[in-house]
Amino acid sequence: MTRKELIEQIYKKQSFLCVGLDPVMEKIPSHLMTFEDPIFEFNKRIIDATAEYAVAFKPNTAFYEAQGVKGWATLEKTINYIPKDCFVIADAKRGDIGNTSTAYAKTFFETLPCDAVTVAPYMGKDSVQPFLQFEGKWAIVLGLTSNEGASDFQYHTNLEDEPLFAKVIETVKSWGTTENLMFVVGATRAEQLAQIRKIVPHHFLLVPGVGAQGGSLEEVFNAGATKECGLLVNASRAIIYAGTGNEFEISAKKEALNIQSEMALYLQRLMR
Amino acid sequence: MTRKELIEQIYKKQSFLCVGLDPVMEKIPSHLMTFEDPIFEFNKRIIDATAEYAVAFKPNTAFYEAQGVKGWATLEKTINYIPKDCFVIADAKRGDIGNTSTAYAKTFFETLPCDAVTVAPYMGKDSVQPFLQFEGKWAIVLGLTSNEGASDFQYHTNLEDEPLFAKVIETVKSWGTTENLMFVVGATRAEQLAQIRKIVPHHFLLVPGVGAQGGSLEEVFNAGATKECGLLVNASRAIIYAGTGNEFEISAKKEALNIQSEMALYLQRLMR
Repeated sequence: MTRKELIEQIYKKQSFLCVGLDPVMEKIPSHLMTFEDPIFEFNKRIIDATAEYAVAFKPNTAFYEAQGVKGWATLEKTINYIPKDCFVIADAKRGDIGNTSTAYAKTFFETLPCDAVTVAPYMGKDSVQPFLQFEGKWAIVLGLTSNEGASDFQYHTNLEDEPLFAKVIETVKSWGTTENLMFVVGATRAEQLAQIRKIVPHHFLLVPGVGAQGGSLEEVFNAGATKECGLLVNASRAIIYAGTGNEFEISAKKEALNIQSEMALYLQRLMR
Repeated sequence: MTRKELIEQIYKKQSFLCVGLDPVMEKIPSHLMTFEDPIFEFNKRIIDATAEYAVAFKPNTAFYEAQGVKGWATLEKTINYIPKDCFVIADAKRGDIGNTSTAYAKTFFETLPCDAVTVAPYMGKDSVQPFLQFEGKWAIVLGLTSNEGASDFQYHTNLEDEPLFAKVIETVKSWGTTENLMFVVGATRAEQLAQIRKIVPHHFLLVPGVGAQGGSLEEVFNAGATKECGLLVNASRAIIYAGTGNEFEISAKKEALNIQSEMALYLQRLMR
């Protein structure tokens, strides 16, 4: 999906919501356990219930790989089930030497029909560039993450008073364009979003950590929105586990609608 | 596999060779293409030919994932085929927030019977620790890598003149022990090996980049060996693509034997 198409979807759905598909077997409602692939049945219902309010879906590969070959099949079915007007992010945090990153890029852009894959920047340019060679496909590179461990290395600061996360964003932006590169910026750190916006005024940012991980949507929007929105805000557990039992998808739908309604208000500010 | 068992294998085989299993379809000899799973057939023959001279095997997940569900099945069969006296490293460069890293750890330590998985440190403590919670299993954390892009961020240096790679190794070593933690140190940078040995005098180091990526085995040994060896040196393409055609496994065996013979000479220095 191109940048233009993504922005059109955001305005059409009045939403910049990304739904994280991170299912664990222990949380699948019991009435789905008789199906051959309970996790796929769960995802299908979540996708059906929320696609109207979400512009993106983000399966995290870890939760599928943990089930082995069967899990990889579930991932494939899930990604193929997502409606074509939604942006699909493989949250895989990949990154390796050049020929290996090329194999990962082929995995998510050719073998699977994803629009984007999250990429860990530690190994530098030749580990990121292979993800930028595919027309209409995106690398979403880790900038500042939302977890506690973010403080261990991402704030490692050089003589020019530049913390690693800023150096990463500053450097990586020169390897791609606003048409094939986004950054992950954790929403638990809204105060840093404004700082990062100065480095990348036009790039889309993927913001995890609203909802279960904490973080206020309004703060994120105020600090991070561009004229074209420029944000994808993710909620995983807050939506997919909003309810339990037979009617879990109704709770998920309600929660997605809640978030979308709030997003619509903020998007209207941009249009004034 | 425990540290003690690994060291025993090194002395028994007089080798600290790790064979990287990174097969790409285009390089599989044509006589294997009639099999149902040509990549598995290739790996089987490579493992049979080299297991006598190698203490470890390291499949890189990218090359399997690129084939989708079928590739994940090949990875599973390959890992299960590796003899039990060999150390198995999933070269996966994983790392995500806590509950997600736990899912990755289960993938490689429970769903698959690997001994170790390579881990990218960018997201910090809660992304690494889940890999350290499994008895007899190992996290091999990226320190200084062998690729060109290593210079982009791994040398980002703070006020105390500490480059990121040194900060990572210094910090991460406090999260685990010499029994469950190793580091990746690129062999194209033998001069840094000595510096890293000062930070982690007893940890095992996984050294990629000997062979196809350049790097001298003797230099690596001189700079990096401990009294108990403390090194696993990887060769991938130099071994698995040593030959082509019907007798590729004979060339692979010869190349593995060559490397092992050189390793045996160095190991004898330790025993004097």
